[in-house]
Amino acid sequence: MSRLTHLDESGRARMVDVSDKPATTREAVAEGFLRMSAETLALALSGEGKKGDVRAVAEIAGVMAAKRTADLIPMCHPLALSKVEVRAEAAEGGLSVTARVKTTGPTGVEMEALTAASVALLTLYDMLKAAEKGMVIEQVRLLEKTGGKSGDWRAT
Amino acid sequence: MSRLTHLDESGRARMVDVSDKPATTREAVAEGFLRMSAETLALALSGEGKKGDVRAVAEIAGVMAAKRTADLIPMCHPLALSKVEVRAEAAEGGLSVTARVKTTGPTGVEMEALTAASVALLTLYDMLKAAEKGMVIEQVRLLEKTGGKSGDWRAT
Amino acid sequence: MSRLTHLDESGRARMVDVSDKPATTREAVAEGFLRMSAETLALALSGEGKKGDVRAVAEIAGVMAAKRTADLIPMCHPLALSKVEVRAEAAEGGLSVTARVKTTGPTGVEMEALTAASVALLTLYDMLKAAEKGMVIEQVRLLEKTGGKSGDWRAT
Amino acid sequence: MSRLTHLDESGRARMVDVSDKPATTREAVAEGFLRMSAETLALALSGEGKKGDVRAVAEIAGVMAAKRTADLIPMCHPLALSKVEVRAEAAEGGLSVTARVKTTGPTGVEMEALTAASVALLTLYDMLKAAEKGMVIEQVRLLEKTGGKSGDWRAT
Amino acid sequence: MSRLTHLDESGRARMVDVSDKPATTREAVAEGFLRMSAETLALALSGEGKKGDVRAVAEIAGVMAAKRTADLIPMCHPLALSKVEVRAEAAEGGLSVTARVKTTGPTGVEMEALTAASVALLTLYDMLKAAEKGMVIEQVRLLEKTGGKSGDWRAT
Amino acid sequence: MSRLTHLDESGRARMVDVSDKPATTREAVAEGFLRMSAETLALALSGEGKKGDVRAVAEIAGVMAAKRTADLIPMCHPLALSKVEVRAEAAEGGLSVTARVKTTGPTGVEMEALTAASVALLTLYDMLKAAEKGMVIEQVRLLEKTGGKSGDWRAT
Repeated sequence: MSRLTHLDESGRARMVDVSDKPATTREAVAEGFLRMSAETLALALSGEGKKGDVRAVAEIAGVMAAKRTADLIPMCHPLALSKVEVRAEAAEGGLSVTARVKTTGPTGVEMEALTAASVALLTLYDMLKAAEKGMVIEQVRLLEKTGGKSGDWRAT
Repeated sequence: MSRLTHLDESGRARMVDVSDKPATTREAVAEGFLRMSAETLALALSGEGKKGDVRAVAEIAGVMAAKRTADLIPMCHPLALSKVEVRAEAAEGGLSVTARVKTTGPTGVEMEALTAASVALLTLYDMLKAAEKGMVIEQVRLLEKTGGKSGDWRAT
Repeated sequence: MSRLTHLDESGRARMVDVSDKPATTREAVAEGFLRMSAETLALALSGEGKKGDVRAVAEIAGVMAAKRTADLIPMCHPLALSKVEVRAEAAEGGLSVTARVKTTGPTGVEMEALTAASVALLTLYDMLKAAEKGMVIEQVRLLEKTGGKSGDWRAT
Repeated sequence: MSRLTHLDESGRARMVDVSDKPATTREAVAEGFLRMSAETLALALSGEGKKGDVRAVAEIAGVMAAKRTADLIPMCHPLALSKVEVRAEAAEGGLSVTARVKTTGPTGVEMEALTAASVALLTLYDMLKAAEKGMVIEQVRLLEKTGGKSGDWRAT
Repeated sequence: MSRLTHLDESGRARMVDVSDKPATTREAVAEGFLRMSAETLALALSGEGKKGDVRAVAEIAGVMAAKRTADLIPMCHPLALSKVEVRAEAAEGGLSVTARVKTTGPTGVEMEALTAASVALLTLYDMLKAAEKGMVIEQVRLLEKTGGKSGDWRAT
Repeated sequence: MSRLTHLDESGRARMVDVSDKPATTREAVAEGFLRMSAETLALALSGEGKKGDVRAVAEIAGVMAAKRTADLIPMCHPLALSKVEVRAEAAEGGLSVTARVKTTGPTGVEMEALTAASVALLTLYDMLKAAEKGMVIEQVRLLEKTGGKSGDWRAT
């Protein structure tokens, strides 16, 4: 069974030592979905002819949140991110968010990509909640990671 | 069709004026779920006999995130939170998170409760990802809100 | 000569006591300008047909910065802002930014409006600097303030 | 016409990929000015015989703001700053601020220098606004940058 | 034996509900001491003839830290501080720091005063550590609190 | 007499230039103590049979504070921490905190270790203050540092 590296031998939390891990290029992609009614989706997209601010606000909030991941997730290492891209797109039954993050560092950016996607989805909820409080954030997950000692990984 | 209050007439984002709304007691409850394999769940709970840090770290991260909601969600009003409680519990197929937030203020705390739940779930993912990268955050949603002009609301 | 309230009798800095000031509705409006070449201005506006992200990013950054004013300006009191609206508009020779901020509190929001305008202008610079490094931020100033004991004020 | 690197092909914002850029030493110098009446300037400088806190508070706020640039400017890369120096000096008609910032990293520190100067100027305004609300922040601009692929640049 | 209000019945952390507590004026004073050699103390004070920056930097850092207390201390309620004053003074064997904080709110500001004093002391250490790494922070404690349901309290 | 590197020749504060210092592995250990009555100590430890949250909250707060050191201490360089571990243990007359921090960078992590210890101690105070306001933070100091040009150092 895998060992939980964020806990020491006695089960107490720590930010694990990565001093000996080389700085390599790493990338992670995460996604998530905000399910909503057809009416709310139409409303979200109706700004498109004008300025599309609902999606733009969410994308920007996602980028900014990626940079604050180590401030939010207690045992997460601070990393100098070299790229962040968040996209919110219309999909069947709601809005889909994808976040891509890169770094050159000693640990991966899975948490940064997941945090960016989560905060972008929360922002979409905030922008649309006047129309529908019952929207649901679904399926926030890692799609793939590349680079690092543990190698590449893709969701099945 | 409902109007999106975070956009002005021309579709551009703003933090809407709540100066004229009275400060009343408001509460919101949100929940979410982190789906994982039985092995990972057993691992998450195995610390229980010792110190249960996996869940404790997530609960604390959730409380702290609630207080930073207006810093993360662009159009969200800053509010002086009067209570935050986040609980992570074992459930069928994973860990379930519930967040309860209260304020006495001019707007509701739905975003604070959803943000607390989301960051607690991200923290659980971070603490357990060495064991399973394929875990999925599911069904992050508002359960209920009380107080305020728009009245009480409960998820159906 | 006016006394500088942020300094005590011996000239040392402090966050002055406002405990006895009543919470009243206060508003402030600030503006500023980013001067640029006609080519850069055309480039900034060329996104308009698509999504206008240059101006949207700046407006959102300005709103978020208003909420962080007390974190940036050492002797500034934290205030629960009830409205923030930042607008970037094309003008003769560049882009003009206006920020409107409201609160119900014991001190005014002049610094919040000026901070929102400044950060929106810095963001415009950042979005456009690949085209022109020589852009200049000009005339960042308070346009008006209303409410509070010292009464209304308007720039002449 | 130059391409705006912070926007993708469809005009949407992103934090552009700098993974392939080598970490080199880079420096940037920015300046700005706070115009005020002779009376206010005398007042600002009158503390000099004592402790000069007005200028000291602004210089410290500028240094701290430089470190928070990536938190304020949405598409700005986080950088490990290796030097920050902010100076506020009396000049004809007001106070002049200069900010010097260095890093060893993949992108330049123009935004950090401009942000440091802007926040120092805002702090000067805050410290002096009890005396004069009509002060104006003028001519915030990049003076020079050195290092990096695009080479050295100096304002003309 | 007193109940620890930050823990619920099962011993898990929470930010306790203060919704029903009235907002009243509250004040707290905390102090602490940085012990150092006579040589280091002389060095710290030698700037006095010039600008006294060592103490000024610490005082400003203390004020800013007071405003971030709820961001640092997990179960601490966010409060709108109405006054913060931090003073660093030469004393027998080192530098003494006193922090005074006020609010009109539902809970006290003991943590804000203690946090301000602690961060001012850490800043003094940082400014002086090139001269002496063996300095020790001593006796950080609450001196008094006034206001609130539990009444006034003074250290004995 | 040692020169205070955080001050320039005229005594004004700056974040000193470390561009020419090589990035090497550095570690620092700091400790501190919270003195309390036997009753409060028993209360702090009574949660142990359950979940030990008092100590867990403090340890987590300490780790998060280490990552925010450069945000709190004005002239402190931002560093990418590679390890943070904070432990709170029962001792004679109170609770003892130890913080270990590592980085691979151009400057040491003394301030990060001292900040982590201080914030963990403040958090212990916050969690226990309902039982005893007269607790005192004592002897916060650097135990040792290794790495860097100035070589190893240990408290005597």
